[in-house]
Parts: sequence; C-alpha cells; structure tokens
Amino acid sequence: MQTEKLKIIPLGGLGEFGMNCLAVRWEDDIIVIDAGLMFPESELLGVDIVVPDITYLLENKQHVRAIVLTHGHEDHIGGLPWILSELKVPVYATEFTLAYVEGKLEEHELLDETELIEIAPKEKLSIGPFTIEPIRVTHSLVDCVALAIETPVGIVIHTGDFKIDLAPLDDKAFDLHTFAEYGQRGVLALLQDSTNVDRHGYTPSERAVRPRLEEIFSRTGKKLFFTCFSSSIYRIRIAMELARAHGRKVAVAGRSMVESVEIAQDLGYLDVPPGLLINPGQLRDFPPEQLMILISGTQGEPMSALSRAAVDNHRHAKVEAGDTVVLSSRIIPGNEKSIYRVIDHLFRRDANVIYDDGSNGLIHVSGHGSQEEMRLLINLVRPKYFIPIHGDYRNLRRHAGVAMETGAVDHAIVLEDGDVLELDSDDARKRDKVTAGRVLIDSGSSIDVVEDLVIRDRRILSEDGIVLAVLAINKRTGKVERAPELVMRGFGAADISDQARETVLKTLDGLSAEQKSDYGMVNEKVRVELKRLIQKSTGRRPLIMPVILEI
Amino acid sequence: MQTEKLKIIPLGGLGEFGMNCLAVRWEDDIIVIDAGLMFPESELLGVDIVVPDITYLLENKQHVRAIVLTHGHEDHIGGLPWILSELKVPVYATEFTLAYVEGKLEEHELLDETELIEIAPKEKLSIGPFTIEPIRVTHSLVDCVALAIETPVGIVIHTGDFKIDLAPLDDKAFDLHTFAEYGQRGVLALLQDSTNVDRHGYTPSERAVRPRLEEIFSRTGKKLFFTCFSSSIYRIRIAMELARAHGRKVAVAGRSMVESVEIAQDLGYLDVPPGLLINPGQLRDFPPEQLMILISGTQGEPMSALSRAAVDNHRHAKVEAGDTVVLSSRIIPGNEKSIYRVIDHLFRRDANVIYDDGSNGLIHVSGHGSQEEMRLLINLVRPKYFIPIHGDYRNLRRHAGVAMETGAVDHAIVLEDGDVLELDSDDARKRDKVTAGRVLIDSGSSIDVVEDLVIRDRRILSEDGIVLAVLAINKRTGKVERAPELVMRGFGAADISDQARETVLKTLDGLSAEQKSDYGMVNEKVRVELKRLIQKSTGRRPLIMPVILEI
Repeated sequence: MQTEKLKIIPLGGLGEFGMNCLAVRWEDDIIVIDAGLMFPESELLGVDIVVPDITYLLENKQHVRAIVLTHGHEDHIGGLPWILSELKVPVYATEFTLAYVEGKLEEHELLDETELIEIAPKEKLSIGPFTIEPIRVTHSLVDCVALAIETPVGIVIHTGDFKIDLAPLDDKAFDLHTFAEYGQRGVLALLQDSTNVDRHGYTPSERAVRPRLEEIFSRTGKKLFFTCFSSSIYRIRIAMELARAHGRKVAVAGRSMVESVEIAQDLGYLDVPPGLLINPGQLRDFPPEQLMILISGTQGEPMSALSRAAVDNHRHAKVEAGDTVVLSSRIIPGNEKSIYRVIDHLFRRDANVIYDDGSNGLIHVSGHGSQEEMRLLINLVRPKYFIPIHGDYRNLRRHAGVAMETGAVDHAIVLEDGDVLELDSDDARKRDKVTAGRVLIDSGSSIDVVEDLVIRDRRILSEDGIVLAVLAINKRTGKVERAPELVMRGFGAADISDQARETVLKTLDGLSAEQKSDYGMVNEKVRVELKRLIQKSTGRRPLIMPVILEI
Repeated sequence: MQTEKLKIIPLGGLGEFGMNCLAVRWEDDIIVIDAGLMFPESELLGVDIVVPDITYLLENKQHVRAIVLTHGHEDHIGGLPWILSELKVPVYATEFTLAYVEGKLEEHELLDETELIEIAPKEKLSIGPFTIEPIRVTHSLVDCVALAIETPVGIVIHTGDFKIDLAPLDDKAFDLHTFAEYGQRGVLALLQDSTNVDRHGYTPSERAVRPRLEEIFSRTGKKLFFTCFSSSIYRIRIAMELARAHGRKVAVAGRSMVESVEIAQDLGYLDVPPGLLINPGQLRDFPPEQLMILISGTQGEPMSALSRAAVDNHRHAKVEAGDTVVLSSRIIPGNEKSIYRVIDHLFRRDANVIYDDGSNGLIHVSGHGSQEEMRLLINLVRPKYFIPIHGDYRNLRRHAGVAMETGAVDHAIVLEDGDVLELDSDDARKRDKVTAGRVLIDSGSSIDVVEDLVIRDRRILSEDGIVLAVLAINKRTGKVERAPELVMRGFGAADISDQARETVLKTLDGLSAEQKSDYGMVNEKVRVELKRLIQKSTGRRPLIMPVILEI
C-alpha cells in the first residue's frame, strides 16, 4: 500500500491576482510551476513589485529540481530574478517564453549562471519522479502551455492561463484532444485558472477585435497611435497587418514594445514585410496618414512612451490635432487615474482617443476563459479533485462552485497560499501550512531607465533608511512654492541633504506645468533622481517616498 | 445696446469628477451653484477630502448673494462647511437636501450662523438680478432639481445631476413639460451633467433592480445584509419593502445609514410600518431568516459598519455561514481593493456575497442619464449654447460632440475650472481665467468617529508639521516585528515620541491578525489615534502618514 502522499503547495496567486507560484512535491523532489510577480496596492508606498515568499523552497533547497513555466506574462515569470538569485535551478519553458526570460535574466545579470531548457507541446520530459507533458493552450500571448504531470499517485493537470480560442490567429489550436485523452485515462487533480470566473458565457477569440479596428483604420485621416500590452503579440500582429493594408508605415516606440516586437519577429510570430517598419526618427519623413506608431504605455505608466508623447515629451512621437490614439487593452482596476490622465492630455491635443470603456466597440478581448470555457475543460478532464488557482479568495470560491455544478468532478478544494494539500489516489486533505506571503521589492528600475541594480527585498532596504521628500507644488502655476523638505532617516545622509534638495529642485524644473500636475510622473521622476544621487554618494539604497503638497 | 455680459465661471467639477461648484455673475451679483467635495487620488497622502479653491469668491466676497444647491450628494454639498466658514451667504435648497445640509453644518458648528432657505420645484425665487425656477429632475437621490436661471441676457439652465426616470418610485416625475416650455421660449445656455456620456442608450429606472432583489430575498434562508449608498433612498425603500414582504425585521447599522433613514422617514420618503425596524441590539432575539441588516460601508471604507462586521468586529452585526450579503451599489474605480478585501472576508465566513460585477444580475442602476437621455433633454431645451459640466476633460469633450450631433444646439463650448465664459444674447466667448484649483483637507474625522474639529486646509496643516509612522508588520503572523519608527517634523514633538510610539503599539495590539492584513484599516486606525494624542498633548494637528513595511 502506498503511504507516501503527493503534496501540492501554492506559494502565490491563490488569494490574490498575480505572483503565481506553486510547488508540487513527491518525497524529496520538488518542482515549481511559475514564478510570477504582482504590482503593489497603493498603501504599500515606495514598493515597485511584490513577489512570493519562497522560504519554503529555500528550506528545501536541495530538493528543488526545476522551475517550469506555463507562459511569459509577468505574473508567471516576473519573480524569476528574485527566486533565481537565491535558488540555482534549471528553468523549463517554451521557446517564446524563454526569449522573455532571457531578456529579464540578462538585465539582472543572471543569464549566464542559469540553465534554460526549452520544452514544447506533445514532448514529454522527466524531472525526478515526475513526467510532464506540456499541452498547447490559447491565451492573449503566444506559445502558452498547460502541464500534465504524471506522479506516482496519478495525473495532475495545471492549466496555466488559458482561454479556448477556437479560431486562433496563428492556427495553433488549443489542444482539446490531449485534454480529452487525459480525461479518458483518469485525472487525479485539475488546477484551473479562475481569473474570469465572474464572466458568463465564452470569451471572444483574439481575432474578434479585427472588424472594429479595421473600421478605425479605415476612417483615420492622420497619424494613428496604437498601444496594447507589449506581450499581446496577436494584437500587435493585427495592428501591423491593418497598417500595411492601409498604407501606413510602422514605428515602434517604447522599450518593452521594441523588445517584444523583436522577439516575436525573430521567432516567426510576426511576419513583417521589408519596408513596413521605420525608425521613430523617420516619422517626420512621411505624411501623417501614412504612419502608425506602435507605442507602449497602455496603463498610463508615468514614464512610458505614450505618457510622454501625451505631454509633448517624446523625442519623436508627437500627438497632434486630428491624430487617433487607440488603447487596445483593458483598464486594469487601480490604474484608472493614470490612464485617464493620459487620455485627458490626449484630448487636450485634440486627438481622437479610442479606449475600452464599453462604448467604443470591441477593441480588446480578455485572454482568460469565461465560465463556459471553464466548464468545457472540466468536462473534458473530469478530475477527481478540482483545485481553482489564480484569483482572489472570492474567485476561487466561485470557481469551486462552478466546477461542482458540472457534475464532472468529485471534489472541489479551495486552497490558499501556504496550504499543503496531501493527495493520493483516493484521498486529499489539507495538512498544516508552510510559510507563504509576499515580499515587497523596490526594483530600482523605472520603465525606461535600465539600471544594473539587483532587485532587493524591502526588508533589507528599510535598513538602508528612509527618505521622505515633501514637495509643495502650486498646481495652477506649476511652480514649486517652497524649498522641498527632505526627511532622511537611517543613514548618514546629513552631508548630502543640500545636494538632495538641489536634485529635487532640478528634477522639478525639468518638468512642464502639465507634467507637474501629473503626480504619478512627479513621484517617479523624483524617486529615480534621488535614488541615483544617494546611491552614488553613499552607496545606500533607502526607501524613497515623495509626498506632494498641493498649494 | 447691452454691453454688459453674463459670466459663467466653473470653480470645480469641470475637469474632474466631484467638487462641483459654479459661479454665475451679472455685474456685481454672483450666485454659486453647488459646493461639492471630492475624494483624493492615492498620491495625495494624508488627505481626506478635496474641495474647490474659492479664491475668486473670496476676492468678490461682497458680491456673492447665495449658494443654490441642486441636490444632496457629497459632490454637490460636501464643500459647504469649508466655503461657509469663509463666506457667510444664505444657502438655498429643497427640503430633503436641506436636511442633509443641516446635519453637516451642525457637525461643523456652522448651523446657527447659516441662513437656510427652502426652495421647491415650480416656485420661482429672485436673487439680485436673477430669477430662478427649480425644475424637478430624477436621480438616485430624492428631491433633486435643475435650475432655470433668468438673466438679463437670456435663460441659463443648469441640470444638476439627473437621469430621466420615466417610472420613478415616488411618482414625482421628471418635469419634461417645464423643460419643453423653456425650450419653446428660447434658452441661451444649457449646462448639462456629463457623467455617463460614455454610455449608450438609456439608464434603467431606479425601479429596475426590484425583480432581481426580489429573487434574492426569495431564496435567502438566513440573515440578509443589504448595503447601498446611504443616500440611495429609493434603494433603501425597495430593500425595506422586500424585507417586509418576506417577513424580515430591519436593523439599521452604521452612522450614515441611520441618519439617512431617519431623514427619509421624517420627510415621508420612507413609509416604515410600526414594528418593522428593530435596534441592532435586538438582532439576537430573532431567528436569522427573519432579519435584514441595512448596513453602511458599500465602498469597503475601513471603519464602516460592514467592514467591521466582515471581520467579526461589530457589536451586533455578525456575519455567519449561509448569510447573504448584497452590495447594491457601484464599485467606484479606485475602491476595488478595499471593496474586494471586504468581500473576501465575507466569503471566508461562508457568506453568499452578491455584488455588482456584471454577473450577478441587475442589483444596481446608475443615477446619471446615458446618451439618449442627454440627447432628449437637449432636444427639449434647444439651447443656443451648450456647456457640458460634471466630468473629466474627456467626458466634457465627448458630451460636446454628442450635443452637436443632435442638431439642436448652435454651439458647444468646453469650459474648464477657472475659465470665464462671457455671454450675451448673441455671443459667447472665453475671456481670461480666474484662480481655480483644489484645496486639500485633512478633516480629522473618520467615518464613525465624530470629532469637533473644524476642517482645515492642508496648507495650514503642513505648517503644523508632519508625522511619518513606519510600521513593520508580519503579514503571516500579524505581529508587529519592530518598534514602530516615528519621524516627526515641524513641531516640538520630541517629548511625546515615546508616548506616540506606545499609542501606535497599543492601536496595533487592538487589531486582529485579519484586520492587520487590511492596510486601509491599519492606516486609518493609526492616523486617528496618533492625531488624537498629538492634538491633546501639543495642540498641533500635523499631517500623519502611516507607512507599512510588510515583513
């Protein structure tokens, strides 16, 4: 009789959106699925990113065999530099996902020391006692897989992120057959993406935005700015095809967009005919009606190319009266203020702004399946145990309910980060908990400023001290009304306080009145410049929090 | 020939949502329409509310004749205490609006010194050169009016907030006829609510939520918690009618809800049969299936009754397994995190939570008209000049477009706060600007703590110093891992730093681990307690900003 149990231990993403990370353990072998980050809530001042607490993995360092990635979104790979700096293990991922990972590791000087192993759908691989088959799924990003993991007590399927796009743009179909086969064989546990459990029905295909975008391209007379998540390769493909069909050259602006287009082109996901792409510097050589600018900054990130273009602060991309700006993306909750700030700037320049507010037609579709797709996959796989993953507690609970209603699962189990689920072929129960939680990181890098800083934990950072920069800005005139006050604690910074004050003043001087009314931008600029100064002068990296007083 | 011009000068609400305030001037007579507040964006730390800069009114103190209110929502009346503390003028409003105003002025000890004058639809009144007719409109709140203002150069109509509810619950119809008559007579300018310009079609009646709520009441077996904006009198009425029909007693919890129900009952907007209402203390005397708790806190406000009930911290209202909680309100952008935190707490208690996420049926309707209602009113009024009000710049621009498409207006003019529009019977143009902007206020009062502090400007407050309280909380254990660090600047606070540290520790000790993981709540609690201590010991009221370090 089998007395040993399989352990499923979520370390992130079960109880919050983002920082997905889950350990699967059989005796002394652990594999980790995904290593994501999330963005902090507004109360966590001075924090750039949040990653899962991996104490459990560090305590079992010698047993961790691999990190296996399902796809290349930040909430699945963004925590890698942090984890790999503490844990040297090989990383398995598909070709496209690896390209993103390489860029990220290079930036953090971890590329050379990390073993990267390419995987592909239908090609099984073995890691310790586990045999893993990647299964092709569809999503907003290309080259995404689910993972079927054969273990000594049965098969566990982890869906990664997915929707069931029945008409994918790259003809790489969601592999219904393999899921069906596993369903026939018998599946012990299905771990399934809960993101869109609030949505009834079926999520439209990535293709579904094309008619409305076609219409926009048809009636646009002047320059066309197009922004979407830089990883939305299908969206970029549609935009480029339309640009070409409508006689527009394409300039790519913004670091993340440039990188993403390069990778997608290299790997054959974008078929760019010669002569279509131009450099941003060439924008002035063409009449406006022959131009599309593919630009990053869909969430109103203060330092992004679009945010800068919106206040005439981009070297090449200038928004002029009559231009059209399409934001082909979701307004992520929490980002409304910054997105609408950018949209207002664009309206002030008499641009025609088209964004996803429900009234502008179908210019964006979600990458996550709705309830019917969840039910379909459950019906195909028919697992004994159903475990919802990726979501706040309320999503997990609802997803468990949706699963039970199908009648195709025996049990639905809601886990949260740190729970240990012990499974064998006919039993599953939660045993004690392991350490889990969030680690807050000040990454030191803003969107367009590459710095060679290794990310560090806020725990450590806070020992480097705290800087509070109090700025009094007259919103109407944009003038700085009082010398900025700097409160510095925890590091011998008295000597540089004059310099720091000067740096802040100079930074503010460099911003237009319009920029100064955008507190997100003021915040970011002041933080970056102060950080640079303090690190150079003292070697310390304190937490830096600008506080804006409006006068 | 008339050489004098009518001046329309928006001081708030044109370029942002909230803090609506607009001056109308003829020679030496000024009337002010509405005096609202708004809630600050997250970058503005330590600020409770934002009100319009009324420098222009103060500079013309002797000319300001009155403040006329359209209805009782905070974004139309919330700035009154601030304005009235600097400017003694009579306030005109309908009966219900005045009841809200009285409560507010009493709290700020301004009631005795303020002249309040009741107005009513169809009853014209004269203020200086202006003859004003309030016109009944429908909205989510009762007793709302538009204002038709007869001026020496023509009629100006200000809609206030409105939708066109063609089946109002209180049978008080939107007064289409009076708008039509003004349209026949000829209207110089229409100033119209832009809030929902992004929505096509027609906003449903307040009545439209009833079927779905009926269904929820029918199938709920245990306690039913019902929350909505406390000013949503129609919603409260429906909930109470359903409670009665389904044999449930009603307990009202939360200060704002209690006040609102009292006012609505007094003025005949709620017909509450004897025996329906019980005190929260009597909740234990009835079986759960005979109870409805009408509770405030629909936006997840950390100190609200619902937030406290959700973490077992309310004296009477306890959420138990199988209870149903209905959030019959919009999730206001920016509040998602706090609302979802509360919802997660409720799910953890195995409550059935029904909230407005698009998948739960029609449990909330907007109080603002959609595009068709905007077009209808424009068609009735047919103004020479159309001026969109209430909205971000993008809303105003779109609304101007919607108006021009009707063919029923000659010109649409987009104004922003501080613009001066000069009008006569055949000309309108923007002349210079007056001072306008936002004033940030630290009101010192949290939701359930009434303090007798007069609200004060952050400009002044910042001269009282700044306190930064750095808290290191272990999220997992809820333990405070390090002595809180207090950075105090700008007031002689060295003597109380030990006491302050102790206060923070004691406050944190008083919170459960679950509460400590809710940073909004930690923030609020620490601020209130520190403020109390510092004010008592030093008489100063510094800005207080808690900073949470997660360990």
